[in-house]
Amino acid sequence: MRMALIGTGLIGASAVWAMKKADVIESVAAFDLNDESVETALIKGIADRKAQNIGQAVKGADCVMVAVPVLAIGKVFEQMAPFLGERTLITDVGSVRVTVIEAARKALGPAFENYAPVHPIAGGEMPGVEHADASLFEGARAISTPAQGMHERTVRFWEEAWKTCGAEVMRMRPEEHDDVFASVSHLPHILSYAMVDSILSAGESQKKLGFAGAGFRDFTRIAASSPEMWIDICLANKEAILASLDVFERDLAMMRASLEAGDGASLKRVFARAAQTRRAIAPALSKLKVAHK
Amino acid sequence: MRMALIGTGLIGASAVWAMKKADVIESVAAFDLNDESVETALIKGIADRKAQNIGQAVKGADCVMVAVPVLAIGKVFEQMAPFLGERTLITDVGSVRVTVIEAARKALGPAFENYAPVHPIAGGEMPGVEHADASLFEGARAISTPAQGMHERTVRFWEEAWKTCGAEVMRMRPEEHDDVFASVSHLPHILSYAMVDSILSAGESQKKLGFAGAGFRDFTRIAASSPEMWIDICLANKEAILASLDVFERDLAMMRASLEAGDGASLKRVFARAAQTRRAIAPALSKLKVAHK
Repeated sequence: MRMALIGTGLIGASAVWAMKKADVIESVAAFDLNDESVETALIKGIADRKAQNIGQAVKGADCVMVAVPVLAIGKVFEQMAPFLGERTLITDVGSVRVTVIEAARKALGPAFENYAPVHPIAGGEMPGVEHADASLFEGARAISTPAQGMHERTVRFWEEAWKTCGAEVMRMRPEEHDDVFASVSHLPHILSYAMVDSILSAGESQKKLGFAGAGFRDFTRIAASSPEMWIDICLANKEAILASLDVFERDLAMMRASLEAGDGASLKRVFARAAQTRRAIAPALSKLKVAHK
Repeated sequence: MRMALIGTGLIGASAVWAMKKADVIESVAAFDLNDESVETALIKGIADRKAQNIGQAVKGADCVMVAVPVLAIGKVFEQMAPFLGERTLITDVGSVRVTVIEAARKALGPAFENYAPVHPIAGGEMPGVEHADASLFEGARAISTPAQGMHERTVRFWEEAWKTCGAEVMRMRPEEHDDVFASVSHLPHILSYAMVDSILSAGESQKKLGFAGAGFRDFTRIAASSPEMWIDICLANKEAILASLDVFERDLAMMRASLEAGDGASLKRVFARAAQTRRAIAPALSKLKVAHK
């Protein structure tokens, strides 16, 4: 199969590389607004041809993977729509589903039945094709979110393609997906950015940061993530994130009240429940791969 | 020198082990409320004698290290005071300074001049002597916080002892210390506990946690930390933590407003500033050791 890859970042490049190695696809025409990243993909053997624009990449392709920041996906779909073949299979790897699927439905028209997105749960705070790794998805989960109007054969094709990358593919409803990832991914990113930013706001930040330890290092690792990518995710999944933030703020306000009152017993209930939960999932979490390592 | 170690947890056991290896001390009499941890320290060769109580450990010791949760330090000082020699050197390794130094001043009386605390910036979410490591402090910072009434020779003795463990020793005012660590350590722990707890509060938590990725893993690593230890730290450093929390809550409220308004430009200012800051300190942070690795 001939693939068009729109967006030669960490996830797109790693996925295509893995699918090439698994012989799912034979050749890749790549386009990215960042010329240099396409060049790197060519040098690494991830891409075979550099396209000058989206239309040129998509024309003649049997399948298309869109791996750009989520708010750009809709626009990419609009631009590629005129160049799609009748059976060109389309996917994206975005971290938000409901709003992206809506955008796809609008932009792709009848080609929507050839579209099925899969969100791989992998990455790292080091973006870019230079960190691409064909084994990035081995053992990772990948979430397929079929919705009305997507053809089952399209859904199956992309699910199988992701399995060849070593991913464990699971199905979820788009709303369920966005709710889950608002909680375990999007909100933690916002809090990590906010923590670093609040140190910068409070003054004497350089001195303070000089004394950061291993706890701070890990807590804020995700604050080094691509701002562009994460702004898009936040805006695209705004409602679910605000709902998670509501619960978090309520919890934090209770903890603050306990602290102000010197109420160790109440703090202990929260800390102990959190510690027990976190320790219980530690073995599963320790198996996850991350591109910065 | 004969040392008494009160509290055979990760930090105390690792420190004493390193000081023995560096020939700063010859023998260690250890006491801990947890009998088993003293036994483990004996088996590992960290301790040489098991004391039945604090008095028995301290009697005849040339120096005493107190390595218990911070709210217990004052009580330990009270109990050991009658057994101290006139020149017995005393230290603690607590993560909070102002309230602990106040407690020491009250409990130690004239022996306060023989007291000087040093806080080593090291640890890990795996507590206990079983994770003790004599090299835990190599390259780590250790904060000495001299205060009025502590004799300079006492301060120097403990600073030198920590240098033999491989630590880089720095001096700070107690208030400055508490302010810095409220920001870069204590508040992140509270937020990490709160994040895990808020998922438990929101329902469908097991499903959500099953989809946690590497970002969540690192963000919540410190939520696995000892609840007992962290409740004490929070209560003992309450004022400084509440001040940091004020700034954080203000920042988060602004980010929330930006998100609600769909204001990507404002979010970008915060995310970009945080990402740039976090990336700039990444090389220094990557050198830190942590006991769980």
